[in-house]
Amino acid sequence: MVMKMRVYLDNGATTRTAPEVVKAMEPYFTEMYGNANSLHSFGEEARSAVDKSRSCIAEFIKAAADDIIFTSGGTESDNIAIQGVATALRDRGNHIITSKIEHPAVLETCRALEKQGYKVTYLDVDRYGFVDLQQLEESITKQTILVTIMFANNEIGTIQPVARIGEICHKHNVYFHTDAVQALGKLPIDVKKLKIDMLSASAHKLHGPKGIGFLYKRKGVKLKPIIYGGGHEFGLRSGTTNTTGIVGFAKALQLCEQPSRMTELRDKLIKELLKIPDTILNGHPTERLPNNVNVTFKFIEGESLLLMLDRYGIAVSTGSACSSHKLEPSHVLLAIGLKPEEAHGSLRITLSRYTTEEEIDYFIDKVKKVVNELRELSPFKSK
Amino acid sequence: MVMKMRVYLDNGATTRTAPEVVKAMEPYFTEMYGNANSLHSFGEEARSAVDKSRSCIAEFIKAAADDIIFTSGGTESDNIAIQGVATALRDRGNHIITSKIEHPAVLETCRALEKQGYKVTYLDVDRYGFVDLQQLEESITKQTILVTIMFANNEIGTIQPVARIGEICHKHNVYFHTDAVQALGKLPIDVKKLKIDMLSASAHKLHGPKGIGFLYKRKGVKLKPIIYGGGHEFGLRSGTTNTTGIVGFAKALQLCEQPSRMTELRDKLIKELLKIPDTILNGHPTERLPNNVNVTFKFIEGESLLLMLDRYGIAVSTGSACSSHKLEPSHVLLAIGLKPEEAHGSLRITLSRYTTEEEIDYFIDKVKKVVNELRELSPFKSK
Repeated sequence: MVMKMRVYLDNGATTRTAPEVVKAMEPYFTEMYGNANSLHSFGEEARSAVDKSRSCIAEFIKAAADDIIFTSGGTESDNIAIQGVATALRDRGNHIITSKIEHPAVLETCRALEKQGYKVTYLDVDRYGFVDLQQLEESITKQTILVTIMFANNEIGTIQPVARIGEICHKHNVYFHTDAVQALGKLPIDVKKLKIDMLSASAHKLHGPKGIGFLYKRKGVKLKPIIYGGGHEFGLRSGTTNTTGIVGFAKALQLCEQPSRMTELRDKLIKELLKIPDTILNGHPTERLPNNVNVTFKFIEGESLLLMLDRYGIAVSTGSACSSHKLEPSHVLLAIGLKPEEAHGSLRITLSRYTTEEEIDYFIDKVKKVVNELRELSPFKSK
Repeated sequence: MVMKMRVYLDNGATTRTAPEVVKAMEPYFTEMYGNANSLHSFGEEARSAVDKSRSCIAEFIKAAADDIIFTSGGTESDNIAIQGVATALRDRGNHIITSKIEHPAVLETCRALEKQGYKVTYLDVDRYGFVDLQQLEESITKQTILVTIMFANNEIGTIQPVARIGEICHKHNVYFHTDAVQALGKLPIDVKKLKIDMLSASAHKLHGPKGIGFLYKRKGVKLKPIIYGGGHEFGLRSGTTNTTGIVGFAKALQLCEQPSRMTELRDKLIKELLKIPDTILNGHPTERLPNNVNVTFKFIEGESLLLMLDRYGIAVSTGSACSSHKLEPSHVLLAIGLKPEEAHGSLRITLSRYTTEEEIDYFIDKVKKVVNELRELSPFKSK
């Protein structure tokens, strides 16, 4: 039996939990397992670990420890930020601004609010996926209570001009929330410098465990909880503190390194893929996540490509994992101007710090082969 | 240096994650770490583990696999059930019935709904903590959309007459939700026989990991989500599937055994504690959780007792962990008729399957000593 190489290039969907993270969590499963709210020494051990982790995470984005609200992940954080502000500021206004290429956690929350009478502006993006800053500023009205625009896109990797968005929101006295689920750990984030009022993050995108995330909330930002109970997390997110998850998240962030090697591999990958005829790079050539490549191979179906690559042990995706089982073309790719058939022919390859050059070479070899094979079969193939 | 004995008797707050559970989760952290929504083999491994775990968990309460909605824990499950029905059935009615001794996850959610115009009836309980079934039935009106009454109380352990509550709700065509966070794994639960429409549960109360829970929802029950996004969990709870947590939850349930030994230790503990003068057992002598003991020692402060026991390495609590840092007396103890000063003098001791007779003996010895010492100092002491 030949051992098949297994190459995981779907780190935008989720990542391997780092062994160091598992090791850091272990004692909190079986030894220091107390409830962080309990008064006794078992509780104290847990509380002390949570406090330390909270400080460490806060520092990573230049925030204060008590600005960090732990949640179950990025989706919940987005929901608290958007629903929380909408409810808290209902009397002040009912208008929210977002972009057409947000994650479903933002888009679907906005749509749910529309049904409740809120107005939402979905900003256009250009061919690279950048929001139009002029359109943003012009969209702000007296009724606007929140701007929510992602830090970097999960499908095409485009990094938004976050500092300038923060500037505009600040000038107009409107809260700025950003979904930084893909950006945290890969791009430097200073919430004060960037004038970010709220920021969503998730551990499992950066080699931390699944089921833990946080919402950064600047002091003074008004927010109502969406989950009620024992009043944990400064009254904003009730539920027993997930000590192991929090410890794992902090450890995962500590392990994040400068992604220079990842960027090099990404650029090699882009260069090699663009040698395949009728291939388009989606997103911006340089203003993109260090681990993200998204390309359209004309005349083929991304899903067939994905499944054939899977036979070679290669894991990639056609877009976000959330949309894997949907048949519609990616809303992100349509928003940057791709035709539906082009959107269907696209592939997302997302690296991690574990990705090796050998793996990238293996992938390039196989993808060239498979694209050729599929094009041979394609009824749409170029003449 | 003398090694201090450490005795954890606060399993109502949280439990030690079983080593077998940690072992079951491990491969899903570092090897089979794919996103359960991804189409490739890494995704397939995760999906298959989630499916298997879902079936196993469902079977445990005699439900179907697709009746199980994974959440981040008991608090979130309670919130989805209560807010979800309230929103979905807004047009049908605006009345909810609950009891005065529910967990804050239920009570605070009900209070939040009251602010939105819903009416809530908080049923009285008798001296043992049982809800009055006649009052329940009389409280149901045409406007009633939901009855939410816990399976077993987290502070005093009282097991409600769940089957009869289910009967009454069924007869009047009103949804019945029960918070079974303390009951699952300790009491047999058959959601069909008991006519339960929705049930909340949490893994960390039964030697599973923190950060994972589920809501059982009978098919046909109308529910709106409170967290929007990628449409995970049958559209009812978006957010990346917590594979490790789910695998750990299923394993933890598999390990649950008949709590006969726990019940014996509980009864020995009750018997010994009642030998201390001016001591009252809170809750019912037999219709209580197999691991729960709750007593009031008159003339002393429970918190002082807790802290002095902590010096002997013993972890107990005065009530729920959620309320540890609050100064008000327990709403549960007040509801069963204790005076505030009696409520302040109470202690909750909650066992687990790891609890040994040696630990119980050690505890009994120390608690007798400490109660005596505190009473010597007490200005309220009996004459």
